[in-house]
Amino acid sequence: MGKHITPNANSDKLFEQIYDFLLERIKRGEWKANEKLPSVRALATEFTVHRLTVFKAYQLLKQNNMVYVKDKSGYYVQPGNELPPGAQQDPIISAYVYDSHLSEIHQVQASYQFSKALLDPNLLPNRYLSDYVKRVFDLYPKVLGTYSTTQGDLELREALSHYFTERYRCELSSQDILITSGSQEAIDLLARVLVRPRDVVLLERPTYSPAIDVFQRQGAEIVPIEITPYGYCLEQVEELMQKYKPRLFYMNPTFQNPTGYTVPAEQRKRLVDMAAEHQCLLIEDDSNPDIYFEKAPPAPFFTYDTAGYVIYIRSFSKYIAPGLSIAMVACRPGIMNYLLKAKSLSDSGTPLLNQKIFLHYFFSERMQQHLEKLRIALAIRKEIMEEELSATSWQWSSPAGGFNLWIQLPESTIMDRLLASSREQSITFVPGSICDPLRDMNTRIRMSYSYLNEQQLREGLRRFISLYSELFP
Amino acid sequence: MGKHITPNANSDKLFEQIYDFLLERIKRGEWKANEKLPSVRALATEFTVHRLTVFKAYQLLKQNNMVYVKDKSGYYVQPGNELPPGAQQDPIISAYVYDSHLSEIHQVQASYQFSKALLDPNLLPNRYLSDYVKRVFDLYPKVLGTYSTTQGDLELREALSHYFTERYRCELSSQDILITSGSQEAIDLLARVLVRPRDVVLLERPTYSPAIDVFQRQGAEIVPIEITPYGYCLEQVEELMQKYKPRLFYMNPTFQNPTGYTVPAEQRKRLVDMAAEHQCLLIEDDSNPDIYFEKAPPAPFFTYDTAGYVIYIRSFSKYIAPGLSIAMVACRPGIMNYLLKAKSLSDSGTPLLNQKIFLHYFFSERMQQHLEKLRIALAIRKEIMEEELSATSWQWSSPAGGFNLWIQLPESTIMDRLLASSREQSITFVPGSICDPLRDMNTRIRMSYSYLNEQQLREGLRRFISLYSELFP
Repeated sequence: MGKHITPNANSDKLFEQIYDFLLERIKRGEWKANEKLPSVRALATEFTVHRLTVFKAYQLLKQNNMVYVKDKSGYYVQPGNELPPGAQQDPIISAYVYDSHLSEIHQVQASYQFSKALLDPNLLPNRYLSDYVKRVFDLYPKVLGTYSTTQGDLELREALSHYFTERYRCELSSQDILITSGSQEAIDLLARVLVRPRDVVLLERPTYSPAIDVFQRQGAEIVPIEITPYGYCLEQVEELMQKYKPRLFYMNPTFQNPTGYTVPAEQRKRLVDMAAEHQCLLIEDDSNPDIYFEKAPPAPFFTYDTAGYVIYIRSFSKYIAPGLSIAMVACRPGIMNYLLKAKSLSDSGTPLLNQKIFLHYFFSERMQQHLEKLRIALAIRKEIMEEELSATSWQWSSPAGGFNLWIQLPESTIMDRLLASSREQSITFVPGSICDPLRDMNTRIRMSYSYLNEQQLREGLRRFISLYSELFP
Repeated sequence: MGKHITPNANSDKLFEQIYDFLLERIKRGEWKANEKLPSVRALATEFTVHRLTVFKAYQLLKQNNMVYVKDKSGYYVQPGNELPPGAQQDPIISAYVYDSHLSEIHQVQASYQFSKALLDPNLLPNRYLSDYVKRVFDLYPKVLGTYSTTQGDLELREALSHYFTERYRCELSSQDILITSGSQEAIDLLARVLVRPRDVVLLERPTYSPAIDVFQRQGAEIVPIEITPYGYCLEQVEELMQKYKPRLFYMNPTFQNPTGYTVPAEQRKRLVDMAAEHQCLLIEDDSNPDIYFEKAPPAPFFTYDTAGYVIYIRSFSKYIAPGLSIAMVACRPGIMNYLLKAKSLSDSGTPLLNQKIFLHYFFSERMQQHLEKLRIALAIRKEIMEEELSATSWQWSSPAGGFNLWIQLPESTIMDRLLASSREQSITFVPGSICDPLRDMNTRIRMSYSYLNEQQLREGLRRFISLYSELFP
């Protein structure tokens, strides 16, 4: 076997060779579906390489759904990856490589899912929601027989227009609103409409992981903007706008994901002016401005926008009803025209039923009560996390809202080991590197306090902390 | 004004110049929002060009949402198309040109919408559907608090796997099924995963209009395959597969949209073998195999597939509950892996609520009763259309199922005139050219009998026929 491996190659090269070696044999069916693969130790000895190199190759095979891990006993061949009979190699599989890092982490089943920045379903007003659904059917008996328009239900768009106009005292017409099936669709449509290969896109560092994947898929050149508890360094932003003439800056400036940081009000207006001056669009992704612990965050960037350079994505479902998948985009007509065409080709409009349920629930009094309860519940969960974390030397900046803690582990942490051991203990978290456009930040992690209940949070975190001390004493 | 126009240019050039002239002035704000624009006659005189040239420019402006038509009194400036103050030109709008021909036709409001290949909402079992929705909430009280997995609800995928395995006696595992938000999403995801610029894609001629738009957007080179009441010419298909080594053949072989034709059983097996031999994927879009008038259509292509070359898109919502937007893709694992990544970046999974409602309704006994009634209702509507049409010299091939009639008008028909006059009479239909990858078929039209009720069908068609005789006596 060893002859397949070039002995003096550097470790990247070795890694690739081992990966290809394994992949080829799985595809050719030399190892059958559900068969146990050689151990990391055995392969490392056989190839005379470091075990970490073999481990990495297996990790990548796992990411690509070629192998799976069973209990703690090793790697097994994932069924269904054999070549179709007769085919020498699959001409299709090489087609179009997408990455979707976060969704791969979410596929892992675990007891302590600190990786999920989703709301615990028990925190939702499930009983009331089903009342609203029944009401919707009484009001619109033919709602399931009707397609929405591509742009979204007019009644909903008008209600949202009224809501934003009232709340922020800035005109927003129903014509400038598009309803999407969640914010992920909004980001994807905008990237497809606005970004071409080699366009420069500014992203926060760190940022929302799927946004990196989406803009990279479009072939964008990504330039990072550091985000800190004090926002951005505006001088740096201006310099980069001048130097690279970026197409757009995708930002998540309120209770940012993953850091929880909020860009202060005084930077918002200046940045909007700067964007207009440099003709750089700002995509403001605002996912949970209502989930604050003490006071409401500053008004969104779009409220400062007079020249039409801010595209505002607002998602609601994350903290109201994830099962509805409702978000909106507000933007100027020139961009809306293109978004509408893109949306009409990518689905037949967001389902009308979901829009109507959202409409009736979101603008109800019950909604305000739900929000108040939610803020308290999440504040308590965050405090439990921080209480447990205070026993460590780890660092984090306490967020004023949102779902996440962004934790700095000691520099000596070896992330791959921590990830693998945590999964064995049924604990998941998001490694910082997948949130970093530079794929660095190897000693940062995102842990969410929104999905687990108080007891699970405490238990899971205790286990995680003790696991960490064992690994890195 | 005339000086902007080059007098000896050919008519395409003239058309472009007039279009640009109007566009520039609207953007600069010389004509304000909702202001009436000069009449076709006046501009034609001013520019000394044929009225049709001006008319075309206005039509394109209308398609691009720059102008709108009010009653019959002329063209008006659509609000919101002015440049942002200070900007000389919009650097964004030139970004990424999409076409979405069918959705533009659907934006037209009309009394007699023969353009809509959708089911009349009155034909749906609305009352029963709402019972199923209530049942879903009793069974899954937290359904609105829960995200679906990217691949789709396992319970639904297992039910579908069982359904297809039973119905066609061919194994289909729940692992090989992806739930999508309607078939449009399925086509879009597949195009994005499988097609790169300059890949050759075979499309039926004519075909489902949005499919042309999607594959063109991906930069595919489109090669048409004629479809007739007898299916394809297999010799031609094989020749084209040999010559162009196409990536895939997108087909809609059962009650085809727009023609209503069905590819016969004996061609299906041969074509699947041919596809495997030439490593050309077949995307089989199957939207309403249950809507037949006398006997069920032949089994789908995918049931003949052993080598994994058929990708099966099955949509349900068109004839069950458009408001749910549920479809599925079945394909081999190598392609599924990529589809899952693409889907996870384009939305957060199809809403779970919609999947559960569909699950409980589709597999109910009530569903069979609904289908039986639907077949009768649609057969009657089709017969009414054909009765009225028999008074003309127009030609069509009576479909054995589906929603559409594909009508051949006399060769002397001038489609632009017919379209414009019909719209004035509040009648819409789909012009053949947008269903034709070659953008020809100028004397063909698609008229659907699914959306209007019996009286509207008769009335609308009588008006349309008499309008036609006036225009082209």
